Formats: sequence, structure tokens, C-alpha cells
Amino acid sequence: MSAMSKPKVKKINHVAIVVEDIDEALKFWDEGLGVELSHIQEVPSQESRVAFLPTGESEIELVQPTSNDSGVARYLEKRGPGMHHICVEVEDIREALAHLKEKDIRLINEVPEERDGILYAFIHPESTQGVLVELYELPEEKRD
Amino acid sequence: MSAMSKPKVKKINHVAIVVEDIDEALKFWDEGLGVELSHIQEVPSQESRVAFLPTGESEIELVQPTSNDSGVARYLEKRGPGMHHICVEVEDIREALAHLKEKDIRLINEVPEERDGILYAFIHPESTQGVLVELYELPEEKRD
Repeated sequence: MSAMSKPKVKKINHVAIVVEDIDEALKFWDEGLGVELSHIQEVPSQESRVAFLPTGESEIELVQPTSNDSGVARYLEKRGPGMHHICVEVEDIREALAHLKEKDIRLINEVPEERDGILYAFIHPESTQGVLVELYELPEEKRD
Repeated sequence: MSAMSKPKVKKINHVAIVVEDIDEALKFWDEGLGVELSHIQEVPSQESRVAFLPTGESEIELVQPTSNDSGVARYLEKRGPGMHHICVEVEDIREALAHLKEKDIRLINEVPEERDGILYAFIHPESTQGVLVELYELPEEKRD
């Protein structure tokens, strides 16, 4: 029995899709399907550019590598374009990571990273039957 | 120029994940991460059983094949477990399919199928840079 309670999950924050070409991908997602582009952002730390397409309370993120040797570029080369990870938003990321660790789930980030005030951490696909899962904890002002 | 307007997308309805073993997968998703199981349903038409885990306005669906020769079983054998498709809910699925077709996007189902009152159709990954996308139109009584 665990003394810790389960993490409180709020929602799917986003689904990230690796694409070869954001403009081509937008022809399907935005012009075809109607999930409209909000903005495109360069993310130098990940060597990629990301298109954000909000829908309902979640987002679809289209990720295009901007170098040949980033993690995303290697993923694209190895597996081709497709769904890359799913991000769920939790109430308290440090509690969530502690609980997952207690359950012997392998973490990529044992301590959350931070970008634009958002705390995030990845869980290793080895412990999730092949799905790369990201956790987000948003700062107060970015919560719904 | 298209005379038709873009489909109205409401939200991500679900993300479907193919797993080898639902009970094992629930150890991560439910007991570890805290995305709680609502129910498990046998889907004989797809030769699979599906665990439904609602979170926010969306669901995570864990799909386990119950035969060796279904589409899902072949996917699992070929690609291993992982994210299988993303389903977005639209206001009017027939209008959405007509619009997509007009944009030369290849459809798996040109006419919606129906299950439990839900109209659904799949879009071919060839036209989406590798992502299997499902459309849902819910009947009035199942909408939020």
C-alpha cells in the first residue's frame, strides 16, 4: 500500500505530432480539418519550431525539427512523422513524479524542467508500453 | 477557392493507445498517473477490448486486441504498442468529410459509420503525414 495518493490529472494539455513540414501539415490540420493555427514559435532549446492549434481545452502541436541531430530529428528519421507524445496537466508535478517513482515507473526527468513558467517532465516509454508521456504543471495565471 | 467553409471542430474526443495488456497498462495510467478508469468494454466488431479513462473533456482509450488477425493486432505486431489514433469531434461529420474530400485528402471512410449513435470516420494517414485521425459526431444527448 502506498501512503501517497494518486496525482490529480486535470486534462490532456496537448498532443505533439512530429512533421516534416509545418506548412504542409497545416494544409491538412487547419485548411482541411478546421483545427485553426494560433501561432508558430521557434523553440531553440529543442531545435524545432512548433505550430500551436488549440481545440477545446487542449492543443495539437505540430513539431518540425530545425536541425538534423536533435532528438526530434532523430525520431523523425527513425520512425517517420506521426504522434510523438501526449502531455497531461497535473495539479502538482512534484507530487506526481514522487508518486510515479514510488510505483517504480522510470522517469526521464526526475526533477521538473521549466519553460515560460511551465513546469514539465517526461516519463520514459519503457514504463508506459511505448508511449512518451509528458507532464505539465501550469502557473496560476495560465490555468483555465 | 472553396465554396465550403472549414469543419467546426469542437475538441479532442479521445486519444487511442494500443496496448498488449490492459491490466498492465492501467498500472501506469490509473494507479501511477491518476487518469482513472471509467469502464472496460468489449468491442467485438473491432476484435478488441477498450478501457476508457476520461480526463477533462477528453478520454484516453487503451485498446487491446482480442484476436491475432484484426487491424489493431496487426498494428501491434508491426509497430509495437503506442499511440494509435487521435479522434476529434466535429459539429457535422458529413460536411467535414465533404470539405476534406474537396481538399484532396484521402478518406478511409467516405461515408460515416455508426456505433452507439456516434457517427465516425477515419482519414487516411497518407494525407496527414502519418497520423491516423478519426472524426466523431456525437448525437445531441451525448454532447457536453
